[in-house]
Amino acid sequence: MKLYESKTAPNARRVRMFLAEKGVLDQIECVELDLQGGDNISVEFRQKNPLAKIPVLEFDDGTYLSESIAICRYFEALYPQSPLMGTTPIEQANIEMWQRRCEIYFMNIVGMGFQHTTGFFADRMKPIKEWGEVCVSGAAKFFKLLDAQLAHNQYIAGDSFSVADITALVSIDFARVIKLRMPEEMSHLKRWYEQMQQRPSVGV
Amino acid sequence: MKLYESKTAPNARRVRMFLAEKGVLDQIECVELDLQGGDNISVEFRQKNPLAKIPVLEFDDGTYLSESIAICRYFEALYPQSPLMGTTPIEQANIEMWQRRCEIYFMNIVGMGFQHTTGFFADRMKPIKEWGEVCVSGAAKFFKLLDAQLAHNQYIAGDSFSVADITALVSIDFARVIKLRMPEEMSHLKRWYEQMQQRPSVGV
Repeated sequence: MKLYESKTAPNARRVRMFLAEKGVLDQIECVELDLQGGDNISVEFRQKNPLAKIPVLEFDDGTYLSESIAICRYFEALYPQSPLMGTTPIEQANIEMWQRRCEIYFMNIVGMGFQHTTGFFADRMKPIKEWGEVCVSGAAKFFKLLDAQLAHNQYIAGDSFSVADITALVSIDFARVIKLRMPEEMSHLKRWYEQMQQRPSVGV
Repeated sequence: MKLYESKTAPNARRVRMFLAEKGVLDQIECVELDLQGGDNISVEFRQKNPLAKIPVLEFDDGTYLSESIAICRYFEALYPQSPLMGTTPIEQANIEMWQRRCEIYFMNIVGMGFQHTTGFFADRMKPIKEWGEVCVSGAAKFFKLLDAQLAHNQYIAGDSFSVADITALVSIDFARVIKLRMPEEMSHLKRWYEQMQQRPSVGV
């Protein structure tokens, strides 16, 4: 299997972290793409994913799987030991809820804030500064929800480390590109963030 | 269990369709909210979901679950017969990929196009018309990907009806609010859409 990805892209980092937590990252051949150079919008890459997004997993039979969480789910099903997406119905649902909250109301908003305020991909999209600024201030509000949740839970979705922690951590680190940092006074969020730094997967 | 929802909201319809397909919709008490009237942004409702979004599932012990696909996943795990999220690792991953494609690159874009071009929620957000127009034209491009996929597959994610079909159908119907309709010449998409109308769950 091959993973088409980029060391600087937050979605690719989510998948690398997930694979490292599963202990299988070193079994996958990683192929680095230059996103700003346009590797992902080439005709060739669109054969792998018509939506031109990374990461993309290539199977040995020449088929492809894209969407970060779909790739994670594939490996979760293949390697159900040390689960990162829950085992009971309520655990699975709760992890899905928190993973989606972190992704939809934070990670994706940070991404749009970045693209629309910096013009990083201005060769392929039209940045709308006013929208970018709405996103940047919207993303900042999410820290409070995380801090409140972590006041009563060791991890984002409860008692166990999960894919929700991966999305939260990757998004918080990515938010630096729009100069957004965790407020110092949010002690629960800070405690969790420091705890996350102990996991070998943060560095992959 | 209670489901806080709205008959006119696409996310609520996704969950109702999913529950109807599982044959359990009539076991759930549905509570209708007036979204434009602001029921979901009240202090009381934010106790159920701090992000003020519907649908929300209330358990009998007074705890809550939000995010449509998290609610679906809960019922998928409770009632694994007639699966809507796949059974093998590759099926699960492929359905997750297509569900997310339909949601991220179509449903969510239609939603932003609607909010930013019509000002429907102008009491609680600042519509940015230019961004709304980018979304409307972006959403229109997605039909082509669906038509190409349906040229070789009976359903959106392959041989079986799944949650990806639900998201696609609900999003296509919702797209009428921005005057977006399936292009007539897309025969595969049209064939699939007509086939979907035969399912009793479309009307719930």
